[in-house]
Amino acid sequence: MISPQLDRLIKQLNQLPSVGKRSAQRMALYLLKEKDTVMLPLAQQLERTANALIECKTCCNLDALSPCSICTDPRRDASLLCVVEDIADIWALERGAIFKGFYHVLGGTLSAIDGRTPDTLNIESLNQRVKQGGFKEIIMATNATIEGQTTAHYITEMLKPLAI
Amino acid sequence: MISPQLDRLIKQLNQLPSVGKRSAQRMALYLLKEKDTVMLPLAQQLERTANALIECKTCCNLDALSPCSICTDPRRDASLLCVVEDIADIWALERGAIFKGFYHVLGGTLSAIDGRTPDTLNIESLNQRVKQGGFKEIIMATNATIEGQTTAHYITEMLKPLAI
Repeated sequence: MISPQLDRLIKQLNQLPSVGKRSAQRMALYLLKEKDTVMLPLAQQLERTANALIECKTCCNLDALSPCSICTDPRRDASLLCVVEDIADIWALERGAIFKGFYHVLGGTLSAIDGRTPDTLNIESLNQRVKQGGFKEIIMATNATIEGQTTAHYITEMLKPLAI
Repeated sequence: MISPQLDRLIKQLNQLPSVGKRSAQRMALYLLKEKDTVMLPLAQQLERTANALIECKTCCNLDALSPCSICTDPRRDASLLCVVEDIADIWALERGAIFKGFYHVLGGTLSAIDGRTPDTLNIESLNQRVKQGGFKEIIMATNATIEGQTTAHYITEMLKPLAI
């Protein structure tokens, strides 16, 4: 007896990370109660953000511009590169406001179990970027998980011939 | 360093029930990764659902039509009325497929602490509906919480003069 439109919405909300079927139902009902103040503005913002943000071709961050605002910031230290798993890691590091170099977003970690091979990550673009020279120090800021450490090890080995 | 559009999206996702700031960030990143398969379809579905669904003027259910598909179903037992707190309760009862009467959605519970008075709920419409006659039995299906039971008690007292 759930209307087909509402049923479709619940199924789509259910796809979001850590949103179960129950939460999706609760979300949908909340949205419909707050149609003008939450639901329609959210629909607009989703579309606006999807259209506005592009992947930075240098560091794979998401921004309105490519190269992104970090990559084009002249005050940053061009000799430092920090390799992170995800964009959220840039946010965390930027909140800390200690690191003043550039970033490279891998877009995840290597995982033999889940079939995430080096070509599914932004590893080749990192290799090319480092080969072009200029970086004196590369900081591996992947997470302290097995996958994160494996990824860091893989990249360290890959970059060894460049002697940084 | 979060782009303003993305920041706005995260804040809006953060408004959803049981979505904290962290979850909102994770959701936003997931959506941007799945731009064409999840993000844009979700934006469209939110708008479509918001425009398609209206509140049934009889029972306050949400449906594409008013009166809704339940209220206009001729196979239902017109002598039974089940009073529920929320639309999700209709879904649960319909899944059970035992109850064959009609529903009335209160839209919440009474709560002195949270300032939810009778006029914030669909209680007056329930009163009018029952006064028009036809129901032989009214089932209070509010939750077994203090608020749910208080609400059930209030409605029972209100309907007492009608002797059902």
